[in-house]
Parts: sequence; C-alpha cells; structure tokens
Amino acid sequence: MTALVTLTTDFGTRDSYVAQLKGVLLRLGPPGLQILDLSHDIGAHAVREGAFFLRGALPQFPPGTIHVAVIDPGVGSARRPIAIATSGQLLVGPDNGLFGWLLGPDARAHEIARDRGEDAVSATFHGRDVFAPAAARLARGTPLHELGAGVRDPVRLAWPEPVVSGAGVRGEVVHVDRFGNLITNVTRELLPRAPLQVRLGRRKLGGLRDHYAQVRVGTLLALVGSSGLLEVAVREGSAHDRTGAGVGARVDVETVPVG
Amino acid sequence: MTALVTLTTDFGTRDSYVAQLKGVLLRLGPPGLQILDLSHDIGAHAVREGAFFLRGALPQFPPGTIHVAVIDPGVGSARRPIAIATSGQLLVGPDNGLFGWLLGPDARAHEIARDRGEDAVSATFHGRDVFAPAAARLARGTPLHELGAGVRDPVRLAWPEPVVSGAGVRGEVVHVDRFGNLITNVTRELLPRAPLQVRLGRRKLGGLRDHYAQVRVGTLLALVGSSGLLEVAVREGSAHDRTGAGVGARVDVETVPVG
Amino acid sequence: MTALVTLTTDFGTRDSYVAQLKGVLLRLGPPGLQILDLSHDIGAHAVREGAFFLRGALPQFPPGTIHVAVIDPGVGSARRPIAIATSGQLLVGPDNGLFGWLLGPDARAHEIARDRGEDAVSATFHGRDVFAPAAARLARGTPLHELGAGVRDPVRLAWPEPVVSGAGVRGEVVHVDRFGNLITNVTRELLPRAPLQVRLGRRKLGGLRDHYAQVRVGTLLALVGSSGLLEVAVREGSAHDRTGAGVGARVDVETVPVG
Repeated sequence: MTALVTLTTDFGTRDSYVAQLKGVLLRLGPPGLQILDLSHDIGAHAVREGAFFLRGALPQFPPGTIHVAVIDPGVGSARRPIAIATSGQLLVGPDNGLFGWLLGPDARAHEIARDRGEDAVSATFHGRDVFAPAAARLARGTPLHELGAGVRDPVRLAWPEPVVSGAGVRGEVVHVDRFGNLITNVTRELLPRAPLQVRLGRRKLGGLRDHYAQVRVGTLLALVGSSGLLEVAVREGSAHDRTGAGVGARVDVETVPVG
Repeated sequence: MTALVTLTTDFGTRDSYVAQLKGVLLRLGPPGLQILDLSHDIGAHAVREGAFFLRGALPQFPPGTIHVAVIDPGVGSARRPIAIATSGQLLVGPDNGLFGWLLGPDARAHEIARDRGEDAVSATFHGRDVFAPAAARLARGTPLHELGAGVRDPVRLAWPEPVVSGAGVRGEVVHVDRFGNLITNVTRELLPRAPLQVRLGRRKLGGLRDHYAQVRVGTLLALVGSSGLLEVAVREGSAHDRTGAGVGARVDVETVPVG
Repeated sequence: MTALVTLTTDFGTRDSYVAQLKGVLLRLGPPGLQILDLSHDIGAHAVREGAFFLRGALPQFPPGTIHVAVIDPGVGSARRPIAIATSGQLLVGPDNGLFGWLLGPDARAHEIARDRGEDAVSATFHGRDVFAPAAARLARGTPLHELGAGVRDPVRLAWPEPVVSGAGVRGEVVHVDRFGNLITNVTRELLPRAPLQVRLGRRKLGGLRDHYAQVRVGTLLALVGSSGLLEVAVREGSAHDRTGAGVGARVDVETVPVG
C-alpha cells in the first residue's frame, strides 16, 4: 500500500520551509510516498487555530494516514516532539496542544528521540529536522513505539463548553472561516427544542435555518453547519464583516415562549 | 491505471474544508488515488470566475481525468448536484454554470442521486458530502449514468460575444489575472487585418505585439495571450494598476487607415 | 520508479496558469507521474526571490527529482529556455538567474529546442508550452542532452558576500520570511569568536541565541537559522514589523572586548 503523509503548517509557501520539509519526506520516506497539502495558511504561531483545523479535518481520513502538523512557536524549548496514534490516525508534531482536541481514549503517544542516523537537528526548524524524518520512518513501517519513550500526558485542550440552563444554551464563536461564517461551540445536541430564537450578542437572528438559500442574499441567519456546530452566516456574504463579531463573541439560543 | 481527481474551489486553505474533502476522497476512492490541487483561491461565491478558470485549465488534461469543482453559493437549494462527461473529461460539482463554458456537443450530464450507503449529507457542504463521494465512485470505476438520472439541460453560460463591424472589433475585459493583465473576449480569429490600433476605453495602445519583451519595462502593450485572447499588459508591471480598468472595460481594435 | 516533478512559480493559483501547466505535465508525462507544488507565491517577476527559494529547497530533494521553476519576466525575448543537471537534481526553466545559486561545478546545461511534435508555442507562457513539455520528456526518460544544444554559460548569480574584517563581519539582510524573520548573508562559519555583539543598523541585539525560546515573547534576538545563516527574529513576533528593516539592511557582528 502507498504511504500517505499530510501536511498542516503555519509556514505559508512564499518561503522554502514547506518545500524543504517535502524534500526530506521524499528523501527519507519509502519509494512512492504520497504527500498531500492540507494547509500552510494557519495563522503564524496560532496553535489553537491549528488545533481547530485538525479537529475538523483529520476524522475524515482513512485509517493509517500519517499527519505532520507544525505550528511550533516553542521550537527549541523544552516542549516535546511527539508522535501519536489515535482513532486510527498517526500524528507527528510538537506536543503543544496542536493535537489536543483529537486525543481519544485509545491515544498512544511517544516522544520522538533524536535519531543519530539522520541529519543534524537545527534549533529552529524541527519540521524539517525532527518531524519529517519521524514521519518518513513511520511511512517506511517503523512501529510508533520505536520512535522514542512513551508519553503519558500529551498536551490536551479543553473544549470551551457552552453553558446550558433552563432558558437555553449560551456559547461563543470559536472560529471565523474564509467566508466570514461565525462558527460556535454549540453542538446540535445542545440546542433546546424549537421554536428557537438565536442571538449574537444583542442582535436577534430569528430561528434556525437548514441552509443558506432559505434566506435572501445578504441576510443574516443561524444554522447548524457542516461540522455539527451552530454558526452565524450571511447568504453570499460575510457575517464577520456585517456584525464585527469574531472569536469569543457570545451566542445565545433559547426556546421562544409560545402563546 | 491510477485514478486522478483535481480540485478547484473557493474554500481557501485557512479552514479545513478542502482537507475534509480530500479525506473523503481518500477514504471512499480506490487505493492509490491521486489528488491534485488546481485552485482554492477562486473568489468566494464567484461562479463566473470559476467558470473562466475551468475553461482555461481543463482542456489541458489527459482524457479520463476527474475534476471536482465547488463554488456553490446555492448549496442546499434546488440547484442540482451534477456529474458531466464532456470532451473526454469528467466534471463533478454544482449545476450552477460553473461548467457552463466547457459543455461540448457530446456532453452527457447526470444528477447525483443521494447514495444511501454514504455518510449523512449536510445542507451546507456538498463538496464533502455529495461531490467528493461521487468523484470517489467515478474513480473506482462506477459508470457516470449510475450516479443518477440523466439531465438534459445542464446550465450553460453564454460567452460575451465581441461586436464585429466594418471598422474592426469591440470587446471587453473578461478577467484580470494575478499579474494585472487585462484579458478580453476578443479571440485572435476576430482581429481585423494589420496594421492595427488597439484602444482600452479612450487610451490608445498602438499595434499588436508578439510578447512582453518587445516593449520597455513599464510600457503598456496589447498582445494575444496564451489562451488565444487579446490582452492588455504592462511589461513587468500591472495593466490593472496602471489603467484602473477591470472586468467589463471596453476594448476596440481597428485597422489603421494607410496613407 | 515513479517520476516526480516539483513546481515553483510566481503564478499564484487564482488564475489557471498553474493548472494548465499541470495538465500538460500529466498529458505528456509518463503514467503515474507525481506533481508536487513547492510554491506559486514567489513575488511576481521576482527572479532573485525565486533563486533564494530554490537555493534553500532543492538540496533537500532525492537525486533524480525534476524541478520546474518559472519566474520569467523575459518570456518571449532572447533569454534561453534551459534544462540543467546539477548535484543530482534536474532543473527546467528560464535561463535568467533563477537557478543561479544552484549551479555546482558538475552542472551540465542544455538549451531546450523547439520540439515539433509538441503543441504550438505561445510567446507569453513558456511554462505550459516549453518547460512542462521538456520536464515531461525528462520524466519519460529522455536524456538531458537530447533536449537541445549544450550551454556553456548558464546565468549564475553572485552571492552577496559579507565583509570580514579584524573587528568582525558586516553583512546584509537577503530575505524576509513569512514570520518577519530577517535572514542575512552571514554564514555560521564567518562569525567571529564569542562573546558576540550583533547589531542591525544601529540597534544592538546582544549576543547570539540558540533558539527563540531563550528570550521572552516579543523580544528581538539574533540566531543562526535553519539554513545556517544569521537571522534577526522576534520571539512569536515579526522582526520586520518591529524594526522596519528589510532586504539590504546592514548587520554587523563583532566580538565583545573582554575586561
């Protein structure tokens, strides 16, 4: 079977960092290794944004996929380089919370030990010098535990839990996407019973829609998006531009009293 | 033979939408499936811009290539999900005109029916939930007509036809490219006989050049570009920045009276 | 073995130029050809920026990799289309200095002759019409010398040499990366003996650090980066934004007098 390695970084592609990493993967990986870009546009040093990205993307991949992710402001410090097997996926990157929303109860984590056979390790580019070589070894069939000592406490992230009360649920915007959609931490399961009133801050958005095309172009609406999270959108426009609301903005959903 | 799926979207890569779509293709497609990014930078909701992109790109590909394209402001509405075979290529995406400049007389189109064996379908992300699974089925060898009922009237786009008169030809800018080149709807075949005078609005550009290097750096020029369309350019500069002209700007080409 | 072609351009991906080039590679290349994006975000017409990119990236790749690079402001002029074998890599693109920092003593260069069997050649898009077909031929196993006549004088670039004196070394910023790091032409080997004082213009940066995490978030520091070049950085910030310094800014390193 062909080994596949995906890449998620905050490197951009104007510099040669991603290209260098790809060269190392091809040089040290098995013949025919496939490399697949997921994103190089994560905000610089934005570990939490990267974690949200990976939380959305990785569950879609087939078992055995190897994912290298590098958003690594602490490179060179004491933060551990780590490789993790969880939910059938293999993750390689810094142990700084980037994988913190993906660690299932079955997660097995190993610190990546220096491999004396590999190239010298720089203090500022572990993507090329530590993570790519480790991923190449996994792609060649090296078992996870041979990469280094087991790690019992990989860094986990707490999901910002919405507050459920008798009146409904109060959540917050956790991500603004490319279209200006405001994605919240309120899952479909937490929504009170219909008919609903959704508010963004003090702004009333009315009830829940099924899809964008239920409202006129340019209208604000609330719906449950493709990740199962409540989001605020503007049809063919940007809810972020319209409302000025961003990450952290408050969202309330309540059942409308009948009669 | 290895199946190949290309991707063209307006998703950007800062969010995980493209990555999710790729995961589904790999999960549901045949072993060894190749994924090739064409663009994720089409303007948000810009169906016509996407159509122009695909019109330029797809004829270059080998027969049998599968192209998934998703610029889909009407997702969730009555617009049909569609798969089309035309000119040896397979196209998968929304039936909203995105493929409207590619439909040859041999085009066969089928609506993509819900496949009960696949994952649940979101109302806002048919790229992941409808188009990627359909492309994966085609990549596994499923014949086009098995995807769903035939469609006799896939959405076509009219090409904005230039006006040819005794004096010459009047066209318009249909695309501004990354370099600021102004690409028009005037094909080489429509040009009157030389010597020519090209005008952009009221601005005289002189005759037609063969390539940029025939003028000095910073000079405006007109030439027939790599797609066989008349374009206005600035050598090592941006005609868009220089002239302020954009999509819709008028261009006239006339034969210069001799003597 | 699977042939692999990497791509480095200034095309961006909003237009279809990269996609057209990929289509040609797949159409004319061997079955199973792999295409790997390195960058399409090199600055428009920025040959020297592209050369710096390739200088960093290409040495990481396995022998036999084919690299197509197109930053080509002189397209259509007398500049030669060229293919080069050097240090185990194959390079295809314009002979305008883009490969000028990669040419080893073993470099063999050949001009790419017009191949009458291929598509017509446009005057403005040699990426699609000249370089991609040539790379496809190399990928199919055509020997380099069959592409055209030997070239004895491919365009080389002089590396901007730092000035070494008794007092230390004076260099300059040669690249600003995505993170705002200021990368200089001073190699590790040229540094005087510690303890060091690094200055950016008149600004004193103190001594040399090993990695970002040795200083507080937001602090300016100097270190030897992952390419072995002295760089000025801000931990989790941008040295470029902080100091306003860009390409060409002066950097001095001196030994601090003891006692």
